[in-house]
Amino acid sequence: MNQQIHHICHTPLQDDVSHHPIGVFDSGIGGLTVVAALQKHLPHENIIYIGDTARVPYGGKSQATVTRYSQEITTLLLAEKAKMIVIACNTASALALPTLTNFYSLPIHGVIEPGAFAAVKATRNGRIGVIGTRATIASQAYQEAIYRFSQNAHVLSSACPLLVPLVEEGLFEDEITRRVLERYLEPLLLQRIDTLVLGCTHYPLLKKLIANIIGPDVTLVDSAENCAMTVQSLLEKNHLARKEAAPSHLEVLLTDTSEDFLHIAAHALHIKIAKVRISTLE
Amino acid sequence: MNQQIHHICHTPLQDDVSHHPIGVFDSGIGGLTVVAALQKHLPHENIIYIGDTARVPYGGKSQATVTRYSQEITTLLLAEKAKMIVIACNTASALALPTLTNFYSLPIHGVIEPGAFAAVKATRNGRIGVIGTRATIASQAYQEAIYRFSQNAHVLSSACPLLVPLVEEGLFEDEITRRVLERYLEPLLLQRIDTLVLGCTHYPLLKKLIANIIGPDVTLVDSAENCAMTVQSLLEKNHLARKEAAPSHLEVLLTDTSEDFLHIAAHALHIKIAKVRISTLE
Repeated sequence: MNQQIHHICHTPLQDDVSHHPIGVFDSGIGGLTVVAALQKHLPHENIIYIGDTARVPYGGKSQATVTRYSQEITTLLLAEKAKMIVIACNTASALALPTLTNFYSLPIHGVIEPGAFAAVKATRNGRIGVIGTRATIASQAYQEAIYRFSQNAHVLSSACPLLVPLVEEGLFEDEITRRVLERYLEPLLLQRIDTLVLGCTHYPLLKKLIANIIGPDVTLVDSAENCAMTVQSLLEKNHLARKEAAPSHLEVLLTDTSEDFLHIAAHALHIKIAKVRISTLE
Repeated sequence: MNQQIHHICHTPLQDDVSHHPIGVFDSGIGGLTVVAALQKHLPHENIIYIGDTARVPYGGKSQATVTRYSQEITTLLLAEKAKMIVIACNTASALALPTLTNFYSLPIHGVIEPGAFAAVKATRNGRIGVIGTRATIASQAYQEAIYRFSQNAHVLSSACPLLVPLVEEGLFEDEITRRVLERYLEPLLLQRIDTLVLGCTHYPLLKKLIANIIGPDVTLVDSAENCAMTVQSLLEKNHLARKEAAPSHLEVLLTDTSEDFLHIAAHALHIKIAKVRISTLE
């Protein structure tokens, strides 16, 4: 695979690219939770979002495959003049971020580090639960990031492969979703976690149900929210923040025409999409 | 997309290709239910099975995307010297079969027609239920095939997008799977169906639970089983049946390394796999 990777040199500081959009991508639509958080913290930034709906989901796929897909999508975002890349997908952040950072020179940010940092700040007893896709959990990316911030933390993780399909069906507060969540969360609660990281960008859509199951004593860490705050400081640090306080817009590009969940999610997250385009990867 | 399609001329009758394998493909692993049925009816045939695990599932994707993927996989099967192609995936059969039949000259068979024919033979009150993925149900492929066999039939269909993820988790007899199935099947039962077509190759793995919910008065039609019988007669008609009554073997080729469900399914279906290879599509 490596021979197909080209080092793409992006030099944002030669021109003023601050008015260019932030490029955000996810395997599908779940990453819109990150977009919602970005819009809240950075209301003047334009956003171009790519959902790889032709190959969704990434959560059960291998590192080589997820990395290849992430490189293809990043290249598409560069063609859309993205000034920085936000990987709004925990699986791609866990598996592909190091390779992407090596091969592109613009700022690239994932969702794992901010979530891990917030979890370490939030925990009182040091017992942190992490839920995510099979690939994210198997990668141990959260565990490693959490241990980097706190060597005393104890991470208890659980792969929750059924949650993405349930979210994509719009069953945010359904009885079946509740039962599935109880099965995934009870073993973590039995292990006395006091903090739970939502390690998949789909999961904030289940926040209400999850909060209800884990109760008020366990702190929920939403990696979307924490990612948005990190992006804000990263833009400022790199002098990439948009200078005009003008209205912003969100453009969505999908790799397949299956748009059903796009509108359900946009509605649930109060997101307004200016334009939807389809671009097949061939 | 059309300019990328090449008419591949396969001339099986120039040489004796009867000892070549039957090529079978699915978006993932579900099509092994068709392999199990083929092995039962055609114990001497070698089989090469491709599961497109790098892009699984197909069930929520568009016709253009599913057709493109199916063409790529068919080309891979031709390189493996397949003597005929069995599309062991209802979504690909529903969306891509006409295009594949136009562009390749070897015999290509899907799972829809045999299932539709068996349903028409089985029904007594003419009320046939069909369950499948969102794409299969939206395509109306079963409805159209059933009406071709019987203009008096009344088809009641239901998209069941959560069943594939549940099967891929190996939850064949789980309480959660039962609840999901009840939700999908009860509206069909209320409409007095007397026959139910399992319009997805994953669903035979849920046969026990489904039979339990629909009761003894509703006939279950397993398209995998009916497809195998059609392939048997097709091989004989085309003089492609293997002549030696020798032991056969099954080779599995996956487009990604995620093999978890392969072994669960092979075990549940009592399938012995001679060899597993990974071949990335690039």
